[in-house]
Amino acid sequence: MRGDHTHGAAGLHGPGGSASPSIVLHLVAPTAPAWVTQATAHLDEVLIDLAHCEKKAASTIVSLLFRYPEAPGLAATLSPIAREELEHFEEVLAHLARRGTPLRHLVPAPYAKALLAAARPAEPGRLVDTLLCLALIEARSCERMQLLVDAVDDRDTAALYGRLVASEARHHTTYVTLAGRFATDEAEVSARLAGLARHEATLLATVATGPPPVPGAVRMHS
Amino acid sequence: MRGDHTHGAAGLHGPGGSASPSIVLHLVAPTAPAWVTQATAHLDEVLIDLAHCEKKAASTIVSLLFRYPEAPGLAATLSPIAREELEHFEEVLAHLARRGTPLRHLVPAPYAKALLAAARPAEPGRLVDTLLCLALIEARSCERMQLLVDAVDDRDTAALYGRLVASEARHHTTYVTLAGRFATDEAEVSARLAGLARHEATLLATVATGPPPVPGAVRMHS
Repeated sequence: MRGDHTHGAAGLHGPGGSASPSIVLHLVAPTAPAWVTQATAHLDEVLIDLAHCEKKAASTIVSLLFRYPEAPGLAATLSPIAREELEHFEEVLAHLARRGTPLRHLVPAPYAKALLAAARPAEPGRLVDTLLCLALIEARSCERMQLLVDAVDDRDTAALYGRLVASEARHHTTYVTLAGRFATDEAEVSARLAGLARHEATLLATVATGPPPVPGAVRMHS
Repeated sequence: MRGDHTHGAAGLHGPGGSASPSIVLHLVAPTAPAWVTQATAHLDEVLIDLAHCEKKAASTIVSLLFRYPEAPGLAATLSPIAREELEHFEEVLAHLARRGTPLRHLVPAPYAKALLAAARPAEPGRLVDTLLCLALIEARSCERMQLLVDAVDDRDTAALYGRLVASEARHHTTYVTLAGRFATDEAEVSARLAGLARHEATLLATVATGPPPVPGAVRMHS
């Protein structure tokens, strides 16, 4: 997959796909080139963070299964995604093991928690917004993984990111579709998605210029 | 699988297997016949509780992945079990949907939480004991599912339990083996497993004779 694409996330749309990545993924701002430079310079740290991100994605879904046991269709849609996130977690672990890099605790980027905190407090808005936030996190991961596919020198690591990109894009779509089942109408989904996407871009800009979790740290969402 | 076995969990040992289930599964007391009578009389409630138990099993593993990010081999062994628990959760959900029974919140039995509370507080004893408690919960589920395979009239429900029995037994063994990786020696595992198994039997007897979570409630571990 490496070298096939020169533009971030362009590979998502399949042969003949022409939509702009930012439209498909609902992101309002592209990742700054400085992040790619930092990430490729600290590849092991970003890989360890990716393992934690995959684990966190599974954990967030499992907590939603507990929070909304009676929401129609939620468990049947989200549980398979949680399984896939765990599969990715294992895949990243195996890749780290091949590189001789043990998994270690990392201070997470504040991004995901801060984004999810923007959900409206009252139901069903809270569920709709939570799903849209998760959609945006998947979108950002997807965009950045595609950037890494193109930028990373290590062929195996680039291949790993390449394998994960398509799943992240698929999860993005699933989350948006599922949010629609709990929203009043399509207009609510569009309005909230646009608002949360603006917030996501602002958060990322703040995180990028603000103090990192630890000095010199680089994260999937730093 | 229904009707092939007349003794609880005897089907676990495969053709020609002769070990007693209680020895293989490390349980010190068999389930009382009264539980089987109650469970078959409230099949939907027990199925809903089973869905929640599978979800809870996945959730407990995911929390261990966060609590012990650096424990060698823990994540690689447990993450696939979490995926399997989620797959079972989905399978039970699909079965409930076919029966026209929606998933609903249930007050859980106090059993699992009370058993896990018996773990020693200091590491690595806490991890060893937690894994052994999870092994015993799988063992009890396995024993009871086999009892239901034999006792339940509904063929599809009996088949569902039959499909899950072997996984529960396999998980039991995996947990005990993994505990051995963090224990000082095999003697520690044997001693703690025996002690926790006695505690498990006492807890279950207390739960069975004490007040249920809600009047008339029956649970996988009530």
